[in-house]
Amino acid sequence: MFTSEIPNHSLNKKEFIKKLSAFLPKNGILHKEEDISPYECDGLSAYRNLPWLVVIPETIAQIQKLLQICNANNIPIVPRGAGTGLSGGSLPLSNGVLISLAKFNRILAIDPLNRTARAQPGVRNLAISEAVAPHGLYYAPDPSSQIACTIGGNVAENSGGVHCLKYGLTVHNVLALKILTMTGELISLGGTTLDYPGYDLISLMTGSEGLLGIIIEVTVKLLPIPEQTQLLLAAFSKVEKASNAVSAILSAGIIPAGLEMMDRLAIQAAEDFIQAGYPRDAAAILLCELDGNATEVIYQLEQVKTLLSSVGAIEIRTAENKQEQLKLWKGRKAAFPAVGRISPDYYCMDGTIPRKKLAEVLIQINKLSEKFKLLIANVFHAGDGNLHPLILYDGSKPRELERAEQLGAKILELCVAVGGTITGEHGVGIEKINQMCIQFGTEELKQFHEIKSAFDPNNLLNPGKGIPTLHRCAEFGATHVHRNSLLFPELERF
Amino acid sequence: MFTSEIPNHSLNKKEFIKKLSAFLPKNGILHKEEDISPYECDGLSAYRNLPWLVVIPETIAQIQKLLQICNANNIPIVPRGAGTGLSGGSLPLSNGVLISLAKFNRILAIDPLNRTARAQPGVRNLAISEAVAPHGLYYAPDPSSQIACTIGGNVAENSGGVHCLKYGLTVHNVLALKILTMTGELISLGGTTLDYPGYDLISLMTGSEGLLGIIIEVTVKLLPIPEQTQLLLAAFSKVEKASNAVSAILSAGIIPAGLEMMDRLAIQAAEDFIQAGYPRDAAAILLCELDGNATEVIYQLEQVKTLLSSVGAIEIRTAENKQEQLKLWKGRKAAFPAVGRISPDYYCMDGTIPRKKLAEVLIQINKLSEKFKLLIANVFHAGDGNLHPLILYDGSKPRELERAEQLGAKILELCVAVGGTITGEHGVGIEKINQMCIQFGTEELKQFHEIKSAFDPNNLLNPGKGIPTLHRCAEFGATHVHRNSLLFPELERF
Repeated sequence: MFTSEIPNHSLNKKEFIKKLSAFLPKNGILHKEEDISPYECDGLSAYRNLPWLVVIPETIAQIQKLLQICNANNIPIVPRGAGTGLSGGSLPLSNGVLISLAKFNRILAIDPLNRTARAQPGVRNLAISEAVAPHGLYYAPDPSSQIACTIGGNVAENSGGVHCLKYGLTVHNVLALKILTMTGELISLGGTTLDYPGYDLISLMTGSEGLLGIIIEVTVKLLPIPEQTQLLLAAFSKVEKASNAVSAILSAGIIPAGLEMMDRLAIQAAEDFIQAGYPRDAAAILLCELDGNATEVIYQLEQVKTLLSSVGAIEIRTAENKQEQLKLWKGRKAAFPAVGRISPDYYCMDGTIPRKKLAEVLIQINKLSEKFKLLIANVFHAGDGNLHPLILYDGSKPRELERAEQLGAKILELCVAVGGTITGEHGVGIEKINQMCIQFGTEELKQFHEIKSAFDPNNLLNPGKGIPTLHRCAEFGATHVHRNSLLFPELERF
Repeated sequence: MFTSEIPNHSLNKKEFIKKLSAFLPKNGILHKEEDISPYECDGLSAYRNLPWLVVIPETIAQIQKLLQICNANNIPIVPRGAGTGLSGGSLPLSNGVLISLAKFNRILAIDPLNRTARAQPGVRNLAISEAVAPHGLYYAPDPSSQIACTIGGNVAENSGGVHCLKYGLTVHNVLALKILTMTGELISLGGTTLDYPGYDLISLMTGSEGLLGIIIEVTVKLLPIPEQTQLLLAAFSKVEKASNAVSAILSAGIIPAGLEMMDRLAIQAAEDFIQAGYPRDAAAILLCELDGNATEVIYQLEQVKTLLSSVGAIEIRTAENKQEQLKLWKGRKAAFPAVGRISPDYYCMDGTIPRKKLAEVLIQINKLSEKFKLLIANVFHAGDGNLHPLILYDGSKPRELERAEQLGAKILELCVAVGGTITGEHGVGIEKINQMCIQFGTEELKQFHEIKSAFDPNNLLNPGKGIPTLHRCAEFGATHVHRNSLLFPELERF
């Protein structure tokens, strides 16, 4: 991290704790190493740093007061939900206060008629769907970490998941937000109606990675649980054929609830771990979930089967029942830990490409894998064009982490080169901040900084993450070629 | 308009025109009264004002230069598409330059595989669907003015339309934007992939009513033309029953492509004008359009018919063929001019309420109609809860326009009181700027002004529209009760 990007202060920690003790619960201020070490990283565990202080407030008034004091004393803040983020968005600062929102874990209201739920930010993603299930409803965005990750964190990162192809990202499923600005002011945004006047600050907050404000309440849209769900597995002898199948299904006007792809290395790792019944010798498999009313699903099932045959699937299997559906999904959902079993370490990438570039990008990723001499297992949301290449490495070997990171950066740059982006659903955080210099030009970055100043002029909210300074991009500069006129010259330009 | 909200300058018009002539086409600068009078209003014709100057640039470089000169000389700017807006967003300023984007009327690219189209801002909404029809695609948001309104204006106002219930507002269908800031800098936002890193400036720009930048390119998402479309008409003896039908259909998990309601006055006016075959004696009718693949549509059609019967529809009719569908839609689409035939003037309102409040709000609107002694015809996007009450008045009678405006304001305040908003799809513009003081509190408005400053610190882009100054809200203050603890005390609080 560039220390020049982080505001400084010279406060005495003991005196500061005393000040906070006046309004925070006794066990809500952590400073001893054994107490704060669980907070030293989030899901991106390659980056670790001990915070100056961890604070666990219990009321909005307490956060407001804390923010006012931090603002007055130039103390940077890092908000944290469940800490499951994969781009280091909650990585603590050595001179900053980490605010845990763990105590804000209540669902405040469920409105089955308007199909909305209002929740505190620390409520777990899955807990919302569980709470509204008796009404026949659910909350659609389902990141893999949904059992643990929080709705506040989902908003901060604009989280995705398997079902985002049909039902959209977090930003498409949030109706209202309450946020606190760095000066502690409460702002209410949105409502439960279709449109809202004024600037769309809800979308602006969603995916802003804790840089603009602290989310203290979220109202989400709920959907009726589909009448029926069917799951298809299709196997292919070539990755290109699987890519063609994705295009064929979507071109036919069918939007599956989920459309996932895995390549051979990922298939074999998952199969060794879970015995999901995947064909071990396939070059790629597709999992295609269809949902809706019974008639619609049965009709689409036949359509998809015909399409899969026509592009040359070597096997097409329909899950016979709910149990078999779960078994097939289990292999996909356990793909990350499965890869963890066959390699000492792995580095999970997240990039998005236009769907029609799938086959081309996979060939290039293969080439990069050979060049960097590191294996890559590919698992991805194929329908969205959202790739999750898993780079296998051994952190105990000299410089292998570094090589993995370099390879990861190249993959992201490849995504930009074909007209895609450096993130699909994991955010930028600290991990991809340099690649933002490739994704955007100076004018866009300048405008981003103006937006940041409009909320947080002293740059105290999660500084050093998300949006790079122009200074950083200049340093990174050697490879800074906006929109890639030079990177990957062999690729057709978008 | 508060003149204190508009930046001032004391430039000599003749000298300024000379300056512009150096880089603008000769017929691209209008200043004579007969030339500029066509621009004196947009679709909200009750407000009229002659601009200082009208400029019709032909290239991006010309707009950039114009913006730089205006910025340096403190000259306010009003951008204009087709001028079909209904909230006065393009109302000119006496000391400002009106920029017409009429010459930016080319579709730049169509990508059938990725289902996107890239267009200049002056391209008409319907022209996009026409251009992509050979590929079996269309652009979903369809404001009533779609034959004339432009895609740039649609983005500026976040336009809706009949099909927004199923396919979303403009903001849900825009993938990328190019904008010019007030200093003439070009900013590229978004792309053709699912997610994009950085702050979501696309959503922020969408619906910002020309206050943040000039839109110079729009990339939209296209959808496959549905295999089949069916249209149902249902008639009811009471408005409440029609409202219940809306709830019943949506609660069953069916999302119609369109779900429109008209009350008796609107039905009769439309019928007298168009002879669409509407039942003249019904208290309300619903038009319900279903689309999708053939199996799905037939299945849903039966479901909807059963639901309509169960809530007591006195007539249920399915359009037999395409011709009859068009005839039934024609009555709805001509409802505004039809009302224009039975009243010297009418004032079209636009508010949104939570769907479950439909019946309650219609009763209140009726009461307001009696109190103000002005008839109201109700036509609305029932599925979205987006109301369009048409207030009938006679502008030639003393103070009747004023009374109509007061009644309109009351209706908007009613929408806020039940948890709704003061706009559904027409924007705030100049028309509803006072009601923004009811919709939002001081903290939200302050944050909006910070956002404005982040793009346009000198307040030169469309000043006096969209977001009220705190000063204005203080003046409006007598009735300023945020979130309505006092307005409509007889209503259940949301």
